[in-house]
Amino acid sequence: MIPTQEALEAAMARVAPHVHRTMVMTSQTINALTGASVFFKCENFQKMGAFKMRGAVNAILNLSEEQQQAGVVTHSSGNFAQAISLAARTLQVPAYIVMPSNAPTVKKEAVRGYGGDITESEPTLAAREAAAVQIETEKGATFIHPSNDIDVILGQGTAAVELLEEQPLLDFLLAPVGGGGLIAGTALAGMYFGKSCKTIGAEPFEADDAYRSLLSGKIETNATANTIADGLKTQLGDKNFPIIKSLVSEIIRVEEREILAAMKLIWERMKIIVEPSCAVPLAVVLREKERFEGKKVGVILSGGNVDLNNLPF
Amino acid sequence: MIPTQEALEAAMARVAPHVHRTMVMTSQTINALTGASVFFKCENFQKMGAFKMRGAVNAILNLSEEQQQAGVVTHSSGNFAQAISLAARTLQVPAYIVMPSNAPTVKKEAVRGYGGDITESEPTLAAREAAAVQIETEKGATFIHPSNDIDVILGQGTAAVELLEEQPLLDFLLAPVGGGGLIAGTALAGMYFGKSCKTIGAEPFEADDAYRSLLSGKIETNATANTIADGLKTQLGDKNFPIIKSLVSEIIRVEEREILAAMKLIWERMKIIVEPSCAVPLAVVLREKERFEGKKVGVILSGGNVDLNNLPF
Repeated sequence: MIPTQEALEAAMARVAPHVHRTMVMTSQTINALTGASVFFKCENFQKMGAFKMRGAVNAILNLSEEQQQAGVVTHSSGNFAQAISLAARTLQVPAYIVMPSNAPTVKKEAVRGYGGDITESEPTLAAREAAAVQIETEKGATFIHPSNDIDVILGQGTAAVELLEEQPLLDFLLAPVGGGGLIAGTALAGMYFGKSCKTIGAEPFEADDAYRSLLSGKIETNATANTIADGLKTQLGDKNFPIIKSLVSEIIRVEEREILAAMKLIWERMKIIVEPSCAVPLAVVLREKERFEGKKVGVILSGGNVDLNNLPF
Repeated sequence: MIPTQEALEAAMARVAPHVHRTMVMTSQTINALTGASVFFKCENFQKMGAFKMRGAVNAILNLSEEQQQAGVVTHSSGNFAQAISLAARTLQVPAYIVMPSNAPTVKKEAVRGYGGDITESEPTLAAREAAAVQIETEKGATFIHPSNDIDVILGQGTAAVELLEEQPLLDFLLAPVGGGGLIAGTALAGMYFGKSCKTIGAEPFEADDAYRSLLSGKIETNATANTIADGLKTQLGDKNFPIIKSLVSEIIRVEEREILAAMKLIWERMKIIVEPSCAVPLAVVLREKERFEGKKVGVILSGGNVDLNNLPF
C-alpha cells in the first residue's frame, strides 16, 4: 500500500537528469515574523514553473518502451497538462492532452508550446474522461492521472527529498493539499528521509475536502471552492488517500485573507513569484505561530505560474 | 581619476561580510529568444532588495572610527535611503536621512524599519541639500551621495566582480544608468576582471541624459522623465562621469513598451520580482539582437523593490 523507500530512491534517480534541482531559500524577515527557521523549496523555479514536472517525468519513465512509443494521455486544464507535455517532449514520447473547450487560450497555448497534442472536449468531467478513454483506445496511449497515481506521487515526493538532503533536521514539512499527489509524496519523503519530521498539509477553509476526509475517513469533495488558491480545488483519490491517512500528521486550514497576506509577503520580501497555492503553507505557519516557533520548517513552494494580468493585489 | 584595481579589490573584501553574494540565474527561454547566453546577477535578492546596499556598506566602512561614531547623512527618497539606513545599522553607525515631506509613507516606514533617523524637508532639491548640510554641521555626520561618490561606485562595482568571478568570459556587461554609480562601478569591474568585456549602459529614451552626456561630453539633465524605470531619472555626477566616459563602450536606449515587455518576460519566465529599471538592459539585448547573438552577456538585475499595489501589468 505505502510505497517503499527504495521506490522513492528509484524515483529520485529517474527524475534527477530531467528536472532542476531547485534552490532552497530563506528569508530573515519571514524567520523574524514567524519565530521559526523556514526553508522554502523553490519549485516555482522548476521546469515549466511547478513541481508537477517531477511526477510527469517519473510516470513516463516508468512506462515500458512500447508504452512510451504509443504515448501518454491526461486531462487537465492546468499545470499538469503542461508538465506532461514538456516531460513527454523531453523524453521523446507523444503526449495527448484533453482540455475543456472553454479552457483559457493562454493555457492551451502553453500546452501547445510544450509540444502537447490537444483534444478539446465539452467542459464536464464526464466528457473529459470519455475523450481520454477514446485516445487510450485509438492510440494505445497510457493514461496518467495528475495526482492519483503512485509514480506521480513518488515523483512529486522528490522535491521534499532534495530539501531534506540539504536540511536533514527539519521538524516539519508543509505542503499545500490539492489532488493529494504532492502532500502524499512529501509525507513519504518525510518518513524515509527525515528525522522525526512531521508532514502537515495546508488547505484553504474554502476548499477543505482533505481536512474533512481525514475526519470522516473517506474521500470528501468540495461543494463549492471559492479560493484564490485555484490549484487546491481538486479532491483526493484512492491511491494517495491511504498514504495521506497514514503519514500526514494533520491538515491545518487558513482563511483567504491569510493566504493573500502570505502570498504578498513572499512576493515583497523574497522577491519571487509564487502562485497563491504556494502561500497556503506559510499562512499556516503564521496562523499557528506557537506550533512552529523555534522549529525548522520546510515549505514546498509548489509553483509560480500566475496570470500577471489578473493579480489579486 | 579612475580608481585602481586594488581599490576595487579592497571594496570586495570590505563589503563581502555584510552583503549577500547573490545568485546568478539563467533562463533557457530568454536565451532562446535572444540567441545570447544571458547571465543575470540577481541583486533583487540583495539585502534591502537592491545593489545599493553594496555602495552604502563600502562608503561607511571607509570612514574613520570618529567619522563612523558621528554618523552618516544622505538625502534620498528611494533605495539609497534604505541602503544607508540598513548598512549603518549593520555597522552600528547613526544614519540621518533627509526625505521630502511628500515622500510616500511606505518609503518613510521602510527607512524607519531599517533604523534610519528621518528629517523631513520641503520637497525641493535645495531644501533637501540644506537640511543635509545642517545635519552635517550639527551632528558632525558625513554626507554620502547615492551615486556620485568613489566609495559608493566601488561598492556597486562588486556585483559585477562577483558575476565575472562566476562567468569570467563575458563578452558584455550591461547595467541600467541612473545616477551613474552602478554603471561606473560595473565598467571598472569589466575592465579589471573581464577579458575584453565591454560595458554597455542601458537607458530609457524617456530619460536619456547619460546618452546625451556621452555625445556632448558634459553632464546633461532630463527636462522630463516619463519612464516607468523610476530609478533611472537622476543625472550623472562629476565623480562617475569621467569613469563612464573612459570605460563605458556606449549607451543604448529603449522604448517604454520594450522595458515593460522585458520586465514581464523576467517575471513570467524567471519567476522573480524585479523593478522596471532592471528590465532596461534585457530590453536592450532584445532590441539589438544581432549585436548580442552568440555572445555571453552579463546583466545586473539592480533591484526588486516594487509596489505590488501599483504594478504596470
